[in-house]
Amino acid sequence: MISSIENRRSVRTYLNKDVEEEKLLEILKSAQAAPSGSNTQPWNFILVKSEEKKEEITKADYNQVWMKSAPIFIVCVADIRCRIKSEEEIVLDENTTLPELKMIIRDCAIAIEHMLLEAEEQGLSSCWTGWYEQESMREILHIPSDKYVCGVITLGYSEEINPMRPRRDLKEMIRYETWE
Amino acid sequence: MISSIENRRSVRTYLNKDVEEEKLLEILKSAQAAPSGSNTQPWNFILVKSEEKKEEITKADYNQVWMKSAPIFIVCVADIRCRIKSEEEIVLDENTTLPELKMIIRDCAIAIEHMLLEAEEQGLSSCWTGWYEQESMREILHIPSDKYVCGVITLGYSEEINPMRPRRDLKEMIRYETWE
Repeated sequence: MISSIENRRSVRTYLNKDVEEEKLLEILKSAQAAPSGSNTQPWNFILVKSEEKKEEITKADYNQVWMKSAPIFIVCVADIRCRIKSEEEIVLDENTTLPELKMIIRDCAIAIEHMLLEAEEQGLSSCWTGWYEQESMREILHIPSDKYVCGVITLGYSEEINPMRPRRDLKEMIRYETWE
Repeated sequence: MISSIENRRSVRTYLNKDVEEEKLLEILKSAQAAPSGSNTQPWNFILVKSEEKKEEITKADYNQVWMKSAPIFIVCVADIRCRIKSEEEIVLDENTTLPELKMIIRDCAIAIEHMLLEAEEQGLSSCWTGWYEQESMREILHIPSDKYVCGVITLGYSEEINPMRPRRDLKEMIRYETWE
């Protein structure tokens, strides 16, 4: 199996050590290479390094204080305008009905996962967090209402060693020809 | 960069050659290893090999006739019951409002992308398709209404060689500290 898939863990303690620009670039390029429906590439990434913004984001993200130890946050922002071209006002949040929101969440999840795997490949650790309300992230990061924050990724070096969390048995998740 | 991320393409012509069980198992294990919110693992996979079912699925999937050349389809079905435990009736489709649906779509997208990357690692080709209505897939595969089909993956050997489709410039997708 791809070693990054096998070895990736959600890591919640980081060393006080910056991420090299070359490594960060490679991670962002891995997101760029992600597939998306009709090649719409709805993803955008806000790179957050300032202590002040990290503090605000952490507070809004259920105050998971461990987050602040990461030297960089990558905030993944999906843009629905790749699918809805009209000028109508759109306000996206957790309760939005639009089918297009489901599509851009799907596509951004792919791009984010590429970054988590590539981070592992680069010897870095990461965690995908998502314990926030759209509204608060929008305010902190000045994000327009027609965008949707798909995840805040913490990234950095770590010495944390975790076993893989328990997984459902393969047998339980596989069916043949039909559901029933 | 992880070679599977760099080399993965959406492939739409397949050879008349079966996928070895060991390779299929490795691909399913890569999905099993995917991260998910609160480790809920909402994914289920229906493996479809019969010509009859492949035909029905293809027709429902915008009749993309090329699909039928793949020896196997993996239908990824998200189960919202990992998040909504009540016995209330739930009918999921493209217009469902529930925030939990957004979460399980996100998590299943991660698991599916693991499979596409692992397929590439195993020398196989794949394509993520999603040009169907929930209702028709549900009928064909006898899927209960509280599940959601996140994708139909074609899998097999191929000799197709595609360049990477054009990508947005990195500069266009990256911002610093805030959106604006």
